[in-house]
Amino acid sequence: MNRQDYFSDRANGMKRSVIRELLKLTAKPGIISFAGGLPAPATFPVDYVEAAVDGVIEEEHETALQYGPTEGDARLREDFAIIMRKDGIKTTADHILITTASQQGLDLVAKIFLNPGDTCITGSPTYLGGLQAFKSYQGVPVGVELDDRGMIPEKLEETIVRLEGENRKPRFIYIIPDFQNPAGVTIPESRRRQILDIARKGEYLIIEDTPYRQLRYSGQSQPTFQSMAPEMVLSLYTISKILLPGFRLGWACGPDWIVDKMVMAKQAVDLCTPPFTQAITHAMLVNGALEKGLETTIQLYSNRRKLMLSCLEKEFAEIEGVSWTKPEGGLFLWLTLPEGMSTEEIFEQAIEEKVAYVPGSAFYPNNDNFRSMRLNFSYASEEQICEGVKRLGKVVRKNI
Amino acid sequence: MNRQDYFSDRANGMKRSVIRELLKLTAKPGIISFAGGLPAPATFPVDYVEAAVDGVIEEEHETALQYGPTEGDARLREDFAIIMRKDGIKTTADHILITTASQQGLDLVAKIFLNPGDTCITGSPTYLGGLQAFKSYQGVPVGVELDDRGMIPEKLEETIVRLEGENRKPRFIYIIPDFQNPAGVTIPESRRRQILDIARKGEYLIIEDTPYRQLRYSGQSQPTFQSMAPEMVLSLYTISKILLPGFRLGWACGPDWIVDKMVMAKQAVDLCTPPFTQAITHAMLVNGALEKGLETTIQLYSNRRKLMLSCLEKEFAEIEGVSWTKPEGGLFLWLTLPEGMSTEEIFEQAIEEKVAYVPGSAFYPNNDNFRSMRLNFSYASEEQICEGVKRLGKVVRKNI
Repeated sequence: MNRQDYFSDRANGMKRSVIRELLKLTAKPGIISFAGGLPAPATFPVDYVEAAVDGVIEEEHETALQYGPTEGDARLREDFAIIMRKDGIKTTADHILITTASQQGLDLVAKIFLNPGDTCITGSPTYLGGLQAFKSYQGVPVGVELDDRGMIPEKLEETIVRLEGENRKPRFIYIIPDFQNPAGVTIPESRRRQILDIARKGEYLIIEDTPYRQLRYSGQSQPTFQSMAPEMVLSLYTISKILLPGFRLGWACGPDWIVDKMVMAKQAVDLCTPPFTQAITHAMLVNGALEKGLETTIQLYSNRRKLMLSCLEKEFAEIEGVSWTKPEGGLFLWLTLPEGMSTEEIFEQAIEEKVAYVPGSAFYPNNDNFRSMRLNFSYASEEQICEGVKRLGKVVRKNI
Repeated sequence: MNRQDYFSDRANGMKRSVIRELLKLTAKPGIISFAGGLPAPATFPVDYVEAAVDGVIEEEHETALQYGPTEGDARLREDFAIIMRKDGIKTTADHILITTASQQGLDLVAKIFLNPGDTCITGSPTYLGGLQAFKSYQGVPVGVELDDRGMIPEKLEETIVRLEGENRKPRFIYIIPDFQNPAGVTIPESRRRQILDIARKGEYLIIEDTPYRQLRYSGQSQPTFQSMAPEMVLSLYTISKILLPGFRLGWACGPDWIVDKMVMAKQAVDLCTPPFTQAITHAMLVNGALEKGLETTIQLYSNRRKLMLSCLEKEFAEIEGVSWTKPEGGLFLWLTLPEGMSTEEIFEQAIEEKVAYVPGSAFYPNNDNFRSMRLNFSYASEEQICEGVKRLGKVVRKNI
């Protein structure tokens, strides 16, 4: 028997993550990488972890080292509900499922909603991990164009009409409303309402992925989809960008009938999220780790974003046709090169010049757009940002 | 739109875990529960956790609190390879994928091997979490009868011939060779070789699930399937029963081409297993937590097993038609009632008498066998074991 005869159709369709493979290249010494999406280790609340761990081991090792409920630690579900209520969302702990970070939220969404061949709406571009999760169940993500204000409602409506006409009604609309990965753009309230109206008309669920929402550096906070339409929105959160990624902790919040099904699915997936790290996180949140940590994280990333923007201005202002987004928060911005250029084609040269990014094509459902690149500004140091953008400028100018 | 119209076919087929629902009943005060599969908290190596955590936070928080590689922490993969080599398996770290406990191993197996409608072979009875994982991808587990020496090779061959004849060739053979959950039985070497021969003839993969292997209280260790046929066996391990479950840590070991595909699948499932708990586990293993911990765990469980067996002997010896397995290790034994009785039917009476077990039907692919119950002997205290078995005897005698 051939090896591929052993695998399921969905497995035979799987590819290694482009970014994961790229990251191996970018790990070479001397390379300044804007490619990853890593938080800066300086933002990790190490003291809070230390204090919380001691308490957990001392006082609750019998439960923290044992199996736990699939839904998650009841105290932590309440902590997460509080974070959401402070953000203007009327929700309670029983609408919350704790997940092994938000990537598991995406996996569960794909598992419970997508039959093979089913379409779903995503941004074009959108988060690569979302595309991977949907495709791993043989779902077919269909991209809707973004502009500087996020997903374009008219394009969304067009796409839905077209798909319904082809009898390929999408199963849900996947949106990253705040500081989108990869484009860095945020959807303003008025446009959120337009999108909601379109979704309501067709009875569509919205999957709101919001890992960066707490990381706003400028501008006005916009209301979440969850706060505007809790009956039709499932929201995915993670502590990876606001506290630390190493615990793999996140949560999903939405209508009971969806969260219930996710709990059932999760029972077969990993029984429960680690109770140990849930207990630690609860203790950290009670001690104020989030408020304290966010303050310094926002300060640091805000400075790095500002620096990267001013370096880009210096380096690229005189090159016609180069543009970039000015994110009000998050970890990424999106640089677009002049018509005819390809960020994939010049990637090798960039590596030779010892600077790395992610070619934009990775973020398109059909990998069919080559002019853009994603730049991360949270991980590299200030000196690296200045030097890296210079190297990037050199590569681009050589290819014009 | 109806709610079920939103869900995928696989989601509409999902049910809540019978055991999880039962466990809620058994959590009532005063109930002695043999229902769960929990390790005794007294076995948790709390001191080792404490020492390891301090070192990790002190010396490697930058990596332990960050994202990590999908394959897992390279040091821990080597630690796990060492555990396997000590057990007579010639393997190396690069054949190992660290999973979010072995339930994730089962989920990944189902994901990469099972198309909807595909059959796979399991024991009858078998681990409920395996059945759930396979069914959650619309796989169709087909049970093969066990006796006191585990899966019966003749029955396996019969089943395979029948399925092949129906053009429903199974995708793999799922086996728990040591101290099987739920039956407590172990397959002797000669029978393992017979099963391997059958698998080889039909070019079948064997999924060897081995969470309890290190917990042997009597008798001779039998060689693993992995050691006998590494080219056709994927083995799933977990630290849940030998160290602690609260980290949700396990591993899969097998041929490169399978492990590679599991890595790809895992990228979309949760990116990586928590680096924090991996780093702690590595430090614990280096410090000898496993050797030290196993000594006391084996002592404790061995005593409890012996006690439960002698209580059963006292309580049930004179009731004709009652039998039970005498496991050489693990956490469970399997009690079978006389013809015509149903452990499901008397379950409510048992709860009234304040003793709980899992009705055996939960462990059969078609839930069609009602005479047996699973009894856990790792969690209840010595006093509870004696009193619980007495209560059980009372319920059974009332129904004869």
